[in-house]
Amino acid sequence: MKEEPTTVAARVKPGDLTAFVVSILERLKVPRRDAETVADVLVLADLRGIGSHGVARLPRYVEGLRDGSIGAVDSSKVIRDRRCVALVDGGKSLGQVVGRRAMELAISKAKEYGVGLVAVRNSNHYGIAGYYTLMALREGMMGLSMTNSFPLVVPTFGRQALLGTNPISFSAPGDREPFVLDMATSVVPRGKLESYDREGQSIPLGWAVDARGRGSPNAKEILDNMANRRGGGILPLGGEGELHSGHKGYGLALMVEILCGALPGAALGPEVYSAKGEPNVGHVFAAIDVAAFRPVQEFETDLDRLTGYLKDSPKAEGQERIWIHGEKSTLVEAKRRREGIPLGPKVVASMKKLGTELAIAWVQG
Amino acid sequence: MKEEPTTVAARVKPGDLTAFVVSILERLKVPRRDAETVADVLVLADLRGIGSHGVARLPRYVEGLRDGSIGAVDSSKVIRDRRCVALVDGGKSLGQVVGRRAMELAISKAKEYGVGLVAVRNSNHYGIAGYYTLMALREGMMGLSMTNSFPLVVPTFGRQALLGTNPISFSAPGDREPFVLDMATSVVPRGKLESYDREGQSIPLGWAVDARGRGSPNAKEILDNMANRRGGGILPLGGEGELHSGHKGYGLALMVEILCGALPGAALGPEVYSAKGEPNVGHVFAAIDVAAFRPVQEFETDLDRLTGYLKDSPKAEGQERIWIHGEKSTLVEAKRRREGIPLGPKVVASMKKLGTELAIAWVQG
Repeated sequence: MKEEPTTVAARVKPGDLTAFVVSILERLKVPRRDAETVADVLVLADLRGIGSHGVARLPRYVEGLRDGSIGAVDSSKVIRDRRCVALVDGGKSLGQVVGRRAMELAISKAKEYGVGLVAVRNSNHYGIAGYYTLMALREGMMGLSMTNSFPLVVPTFGRQALLGTNPISFSAPGDREPFVLDMATSVVPRGKLESYDREGQSIPLGWAVDARGRGSPNAKEILDNMANRRGGGILPLGGEGELHSGHKGYGLALMVEILCGALPGAALGPEVYSAKGEPNVGHVFAAIDVAAFRPVQEFETDLDRLTGYLKDSPKAEGQERIWIHGEKSTLVEAKRRREGIPLGPKVVASMKKLGTELAIAWVQG
Repeated sequence: MKEEPTTVAARVKPGDLTAFVVSILERLKVPRRDAETVADVLVLADLRGIGSHGVARLPRYVEGLRDGSIGAVDSSKVIRDRRCVALVDGGKSLGQVVGRRAMELAISKAKEYGVGLVAVRNSNHYGIAGYYTLMALREGMMGLSMTNSFPLVVPTFGRQALLGTNPISFSAPGDREPFVLDMATSVVPRGKLESYDREGQSIPLGWAVDARGRGSPNAKEILDNMANRRGGGILPLGGEGELHSGHKGYGLALMVEILCGALPGAALGPEVYSAKGEPNVGHVFAAIDVAAFRPVQEFETDLDRLTGYLKDSPKAEGQERIWIHGEKSTLVEAKRRREGIPLGPKVVASMKKLGTELAIAWVQG
């Protein structure tokens, strides 16, 4: 996920890319501030090496704005608000706009109560889960962000994709460096299957199952089946069956589905994106004010001691470094801020197409 | 984990086993109500098929009570209390007693604020994480419980066990049946290696690494190395390296370590149980009041619809049933309440030994 595209068709400055996305969205009647939020989330994904959630997603948002499944103007509403919790109806608005607003609410509640927990229904794809937990970090807080998503994951012993890759992001402030976990609860994301397929490579057993529910190395067949909801799909973290604890990844995916689907009353499992024009995606956001427990500086010193134990410990034969979650993304982000964001030919072509359709000059113009 | 012992040396009534544990603990000056709490947690583990956390642990608690690393009388204190969060110092008391008190506090805060979050330091082994989330269920709430633990797990690309098996339990009420996830963040628990070793079987690659940090099928060697902190250990959920996303399980283990260690100021990673007589184990507990978001009945109906999608979906070739987390334990518990709890010869011998030492008649007497 933190790699360069196989072929780099363009290397663009983050500011230029942001401005392009903002202009495209403004053409589709998204107010400037909201367009900036969406652009921020997409470009941050590209900066941090999560290309699958970067500007490559923009054409789908444009499609949603055109067909009405995504509202251009934020019509999200706080439906219930009780001390440290709130329920938000996203009003089918842009997921990033709804998500940012919900996380801001969680943070303000955490300032007052120690914790803020906000559940959201009737939203759309919200980009990288980590965007929202990074918001909490800037306040010296821990953040938690989850979302349900298009059903791609097969439950343990099943053969039908009924759960999303349902990501969990969790962040905590550190003195030298924060901890930022941002992970799908599936063993791999769909993008990984797509890149193996493009290279004509077999995928390792333990990643996905075919329409009979049996492990398969055939990425193309699995992707086709998933796209047409014909059975089979990606396995939960831990792989096939129970031998390597695939039931644990399945349990985590289900936990995310309960918190993002059942708690706010959003779509559940196979219902997500199933009704035309009614995505009804659900999210949950939490902020935890470290200062309510102990001085933030003490906490950060402890976090550094903990990560120090890990990083300074002896490495496995053949390995040179033990990573802390978020480190790789931070390194990639610094590099890409200096050198520009590398985009592959398909992404560049789709950006140019949008630019032509909406009369916005592509950054390379 | 949900299996009968290989050899059943005794089959005891849960009530008899509870009474025996209570008597043993009372002999060691644990007040009756607290002794009952500990017995409840241990016997519930045996009832639900988690023998590694059942009465088999009692000898270690007895040892701790004798050597002073566990206090017989609860001296836990609420150090900070701010609206929906609290920090508890366990005062080296029995982990179950501290844990129950902390979860009760989280639940009462959730009733008032919507969420309660309580972090605990300076505690001891608290038994099964699921005990505390079941407490939340009885109030129609969702529960979350985590603890750090003895370092047995090797970080991705490392070769030294620096993190505990750091379990996560999460529960949510359902109409027909609740969802109860209770999982170690390692690929398997230590007990699994022990049972393969007893049977003289090789363990699958992807479960554990040797002292060089390389995958190994040799359970005996790995167990010896871990017991003597000589390197090697159990792998995080997802296995060795990054191919099957072992870094995700490693990230989850680290998240638990941050919430249970750094947030309350407890021992961190390799520090857990490292200082003689100063276990300084940390836990975190949360309760979420579903009713603060939507009517509990609506939530429960949704949860049932979600689990119904999963259970009623087609099965993988060769499989007959898709499980929801907690179901297996519920079935085992019902059976064992009827038929008694099966105990293996080692556990029975250790119980009899304790009984003889403390002049308490063993249940079969």
